[in-house]
Amino acid sequence: MGFCDGKVVDIHTHMYPPEYVKILESRTSIPLVRSFPGSSDPRLILLDTEVPILEEAEAAKARGETPTNIPGRPLTKHYSSLDQKMHFMETHEIDISVVSLANPWLDFLSASEAGPIAESINADFSRMCEEKCGRLFFFAALPLTASQEVILSSIAHVSSLPYCRGVILGTSGLGKGLDDPDLLPIFQALADARLIIFLHPHYGLPNEVWGPRAQENYGHVLPLALGFPMETTIAVTRMYLAGVFDQVPQLNMLLAHSGGTLPFLAGRIESCILHDGHLHAAGTKPKKTIWEVLSSQVYLDAVVYSDVGLKAAVAASGPEGHERLMFGTDHPFFPPLGSDEEGEWESVTWNGAAVRKAFGEDAEGVKVQKVMGGNAVKVLNLRRDGCR
Amino acid sequence: MGFCDGKVVDIHTHMYPPEYVKILESRTSIPLVRSFPGSSDPRLILLDTEVPILEEAEAAKARGETPTNIPGRPLTKHYSSLDQKMHFMETHEIDISVVSLANPWLDFLSASEAGPIAESINADFSRMCEEKCGRLFFFAALPLTASQEVILSSIAHVSSLPYCRGVILGTSGLGKGLDDPDLLPIFQALADARLIIFLHPHYGLPNEVWGPRAQENYGHVLPLALGFPMETTIAVTRMYLAGVFDQVPQLNMLLAHSGGTLPFLAGRIESCILHDGHLHAAGTKPKKTIWEVLSSQVYLDAVVYSDVGLKAAVAASGPEGHERLMFGTDHPFFPPLGSDEEGEWESVTWNGAAVRKAFGEDAEGVKVQKVMGGNAVKVLNLRRDGCR
Repeated sequence: MGFCDGKVVDIHTHMYPPEYVKILESRTSIPLVRSFPGSSDPRLILLDTEVPILEEAEAAKARGETPTNIPGRPLTKHYSSLDQKMHFMETHEIDISVVSLANPWLDFLSASEAGPIAESINADFSRMCEEKCGRLFFFAALPLTASQEVILSSIAHVSSLPYCRGVILGTSGLGKGLDDPDLLPIFQALADARLIIFLHPHYGLPNEVWGPRAQENYGHVLPLALGFPMETTIAVTRMYLAGVFDQVPQLNMLLAHSGGTLPFLAGRIESCILHDGHLHAAGTKPKKTIWEVLSSQVYLDAVVYSDVGLKAAVAASGPEGHERLMFGTDHPFFPPLGSDEEGEWESVTWNGAAVRKAFGEDAEGVKVQKVMGGNAVKVLNLRRDGCR
Repeated sequence: MGFCDGKVVDIHTHMYPPEYVKILESRTSIPLVRSFPGSSDPRLILLDTEVPILEEAEAAKARGETPTNIPGRPLTKHYSSLDQKMHFMETHEIDISVVSLANPWLDFLSASEAGPIAESINADFSRMCEEKCGRLFFFAALPLTASQEVILSSIAHVSSLPYCRGVILGTSGLGKGLDDPDLLPIFQALADARLIIFLHPHYGLPNEVWGPRAQENYGHVLPLALGFPMETTIAVTRMYLAGVFDQVPQLNMLLAHSGGTLPFLAGRIESCILHDGHLHAAGTKPKKTIWEVLSSQVYLDAVVYSDVGLKAAVAASGPEGHERLMFGTDHPFFPPLGSDEEGEWESVTWNGAAVRKAFGEDAEGVKVQKVMGGNAVKVLNLRRDGCR
């Protein structure tokens, strides 16, 4: 990436530890992993929109045929190999990665299995971080389908793990959505433990909104390019309207994909609240403005693939907005097509170039360095003394 | 608004002509207009989310009671009175308004009634513009539920109306969505007639995405603040992926609410296209990048309620981006709550202040003047000689 001074830190980078892949292989509904004739790697099927192609391919396989369309994406070693993660970091000159379990995390587990599996996955991440001491930290997975007691106990446990710097959370699999008042004790426990929530999308929007041509014609573009960021925006706005940021003022969130669309829509959210007869009459407006939340309790990653988005993200985050934005890659998603996966990934170099384009006018390069790593080191305390 | 030089033009301002209100009063499903004891104005009920409250209120009214919750919003004279529109323009120092039928336009009409009603509504607008010659222009309504032949004939008709400057279009009520290939002749006809499409949301997203607490607790904030801009973004991205902008290169669109979220998500759209295996294999990527479309075929209104959003909108629109953004008010929606509707509207002054904050660093004020009116006068040719 060519940033000579300061550390480059990737705070948005995923892994499926081998045990997690085994779980996916054993499943009969999405998310799952399947092998097909005609594809050298097993296939990872995550999205609702992939199910029709999966069903066709399963039927072809059962008939002993090679499927015309192979569903999902190749589950390469980029998903589960620590060596591959380190190679990816070397290739892109990334000094430190804060890894997290990829979506959909543990959302699909039964209440009874969630607790033990979470503990085992987090132990996997701890071991990897220990092995690459100082180069790797992680956001823990929580057993969100278990009881509140189990979740709270898991929060206490992960906060004691030396390389854990927060938790990754989806927008679902927990109560009735993140604005469920039953979740307040969980948010309070995370705030008390000083664990940041990395909020990440997975479920997108109902398929109907993409229209009848999408499945056939537009690949995964609509659910990934629009559904993911819209899901994040909706989830965090629901939390905001429910008063979570007022009630848990020490809660810190890191929002994937530069907040989805929150920086762009914050003004409209404020205006709609100001003009809403129901909130006006009920006196239930949030106490903090969305701008205050953005500049005090929310951090954004820099995974938005344009200087336009990055500048808006920083501008929305207040006067010190350039201290609230953190570089990320989204590895191992969005691999290069038709070129070597061992080399540079365009999805990474685009985001690096966008950071330089957005903030490179700062002659000393301080803003670029902060976004590329300085902010993450400071906010997430990414120092580890006494590595063996 | 206090812009002494140059005209102030409002290109996003709606009306329901009296005949349209009569249609709404006669309906039994949304959109509709109803009167209730306890509300001095009739109520306008437009949104799916308002239906449960409507049903409760209808039941209370049938029992001779005053409803606890009054559904929808007051249908004040701001919606249908030309005098009120002119008063609103005087109050906010708006020189010229380009009025359009408010959502949901004629989407709910049967195929046979759509043609004649569209003609009559457009005649109403023409009369109003003639009466206020030079102060008013309009975007016509099309009979979108009629046959292609009727729609094409309506396009030919409205292009001959002296004050018509384009057409307003929702994202639905026309084919199977705006990416339906059957619509290409309609887009081509609009391009040939040099009629810009003002793309405006109405349907939002399916209610389920707002979660179980929304209806009770968050008023209309989520569907209006998030659903509307997301709907616009999805519709225009579907058009883009279907190749409409490649196939009809003279087509011009004006996107409501600064493009919904398109300026912020354009980078992610480009990246998702670049990394999509299906599009890669099928060779069906759009020819123009989304950035090229934004800087050549798309104009954005300035109704985004923040300088953050406005700057992103201009930056996304290319090197001459400040010539592609046009001030609007969204009148008569978002009236001031608890204060005088005859005075200044905060929803308007917020947007005016955001324009000054975003572009006021330009000492000559040229950018502010362009956004506040200069661009609209030029792009929409808002000159009318020979007014009596």
